[in-house]
Amino acid sequence: MDLKAYRRDKRALVDQGLKSVFPEPEGFAADVIRAMTYSLFAGGKRLRPILCIAGAEAVGAEAATVLPFACSLELIHTYSLIHDDLPVMDNDDLRRGKPTNHKVFGEAVALLAGDGLLTEAFRLMAATSGVDPHALLRVIRLAGSAAGYQGMVGGQVVDIQSEGKPVDKPLVDYIHAHKTGALIHASVTSGAILGQGSEERVKAISSYGEKIGLAFQIADDILDVEGDSKTMGKGVGGDARKKKITFPAAVGLQKAKETQRRLVEESLGALKAFDEKADPLRSIAVYIIERKK
Amino acid sequence: MDLKAYRRDKRALVDQGLKSVFPEPEGFAADVIRAMTYSLFAGGKRLRPILCIAGAEAVGAEAATVLPFACSLELIHTYSLIHDDLPVMDNDDLRRGKPTNHKVFGEAVALLAGDGLLTEAFRLMAATSGVDPHALLRVIRLAGSAAGYQGMVGGQVVDIQSEGKPVDKPLVDYIHAHKTGALIHASVTSGAILGQGSEERVKAISSYGEKIGLAFQIADDILDVEGDSKTMGKGVGGDARKKKITFPAAVGLQKAKETQRRLVEESLGALKAFDEKADPLRSIAVYIIERKK
Repeated sequence: MDLKAYRRDKRALVDQGLKSVFPEPEGFAADVIRAMTYSLFAGGKRLRPILCIAGAEAVGAEAATVLPFACSLELIHTYSLIHDDLPVMDNDDLRRGKPTNHKVFGEAVALLAGDGLLTEAFRLMAATSGVDPHALLRVIRLAGSAAGYQGMVGGQVVDIQSEGKPVDKPLVDYIHAHKTGALIHASVTSGAILGQGSEERVKAISSYGEKIGLAFQIADDILDVEGDSKTMGKGVGGDARKKKITFPAAVGLQKAKETQRRLVEESLGALKAFDEKADPLRSIAVYIIERKK
Repeated sequence: MDLKAYRRDKRALVDQGLKSVFPEPEGFAADVIRAMTYSLFAGGKRLRPILCIAGAEAVGAEAATVLPFACSLELIHTYSLIHDDLPVMDNDDLRRGKPTNHKVFGEAVALLAGDGLLTEAFRLMAATSGVDPHALLRVIRLAGSAAGYQGMVGGQVVDIQSEGKPVDKPLVDYIHAHKTGALIHASVTSGAILGQGSEERVKAISSYGEKIGLAFQIADDILDVEGDSKTMGKGVGGDARKKKITFPAAVGLQKAKETQRRLVEESLGALKAFDEKADPLRSIAVYIIERKK
């Protein structure tokens, strides 16, 4: 299958969905709308919405069915980047080749733009029409767990607090599973649930999601060591500079590469019972560790 | 009716509900759990959850039916206070007589504790069982609008940006309606919706909520001028010092007091068709402008 074309098509669909969420920046709150959309349309890969759509398609549903929910996952991802870049957190000036949100809008508006995106994400989820309301409430709970203190927020706290501490494998595993893995896992799993997949299929896709979530973060860590800052649109080597606890730092670069390859193989294994409608998921798994940014 | 006893009983119910949301602070994410619960149990009035419960009771439902949803509103309120107190925002050291979250846990953890509370709020909403799922999705959308950039976050952005600017009545009205009014309105209205009130009853309670939301913020502004800092557990006169756009600054103290009284009368008028089950709402309206903190 042609993953590049698939990603281009779904990305266009997601961008269209995202554009319809926010009004033109007018009135008193114009600045926060500007700040939210600045980061939302700064060139993200839309990996989480695409995974949600591909998860729905793998169980036989249409992309359009899950589109609002899929878009809401990008809002959550974008808010996390804005808050992560703030001076009290990672203090980054550049993201995807552009000045970070607080560099453009100031720290107070950036903080509130993040809050606004996170809140709007859940409003948008609950506005997904034409799906089973029980399934919708289930995936809202799933996304809430994955994004909150039991998931992404928990991972970020530990990530920040671990800077400069001795590298420790259980700590790396915790950070990876929570900071990045949880939301990626929830994205693809929620697609399968909203797409009315059987519990068996949902379980298989959930297992796939867990594996690629970890592989994605390991790949990110490796890119920070080996990547090209021009391709990536941000500085590399930041993890080492900030003394971050990373997978390559914990087990070495070679072992890190082996682990991500094993995880991708396992993720493909989880999809064994699926037909060609799961091909996008299969391609995405391989793409995750081969990407250059 | 004995509002003091009613508030005490419902507060105990809400506190019990809130206590069951978070686990003991253990494991890697212990610090963020500590930070979230520190602010959550710092002595809040629980006004929003109590309004939600009273809204449900006014249309004949039981408090227990809406309890998880009601608790989630307190999570949203608490997150907004933590972020509002941060140095990049209002830079406050004291809240309810205690050091603010970032003074105890540092700015990074405070930021993430706020994010964690906001996210958990929506997870908890979606976990409200035993209610109509369509009604539940409707109130999640309502809370999302009220808390997000079209509501509270929008009001906070404008509040921060207006500091030091000439006092302007439309600006005050915008800040009041959005920063505080929107979530108070959503709290009582969501109770009536989840309690399966008729559309006519929901509309009446929505009108009540709009009036008391505005009255509440005017009362807050007046307390900042006339209140006793010991009773309030925080400094007074902060609005004037920070050159905040307030209602008394816009129209004068006398006119501000007249306006809040008029709003409370109008809120009582909106409840004319209700029987004694709406008495808690009636008492709360009066309490809102008579409170000393």
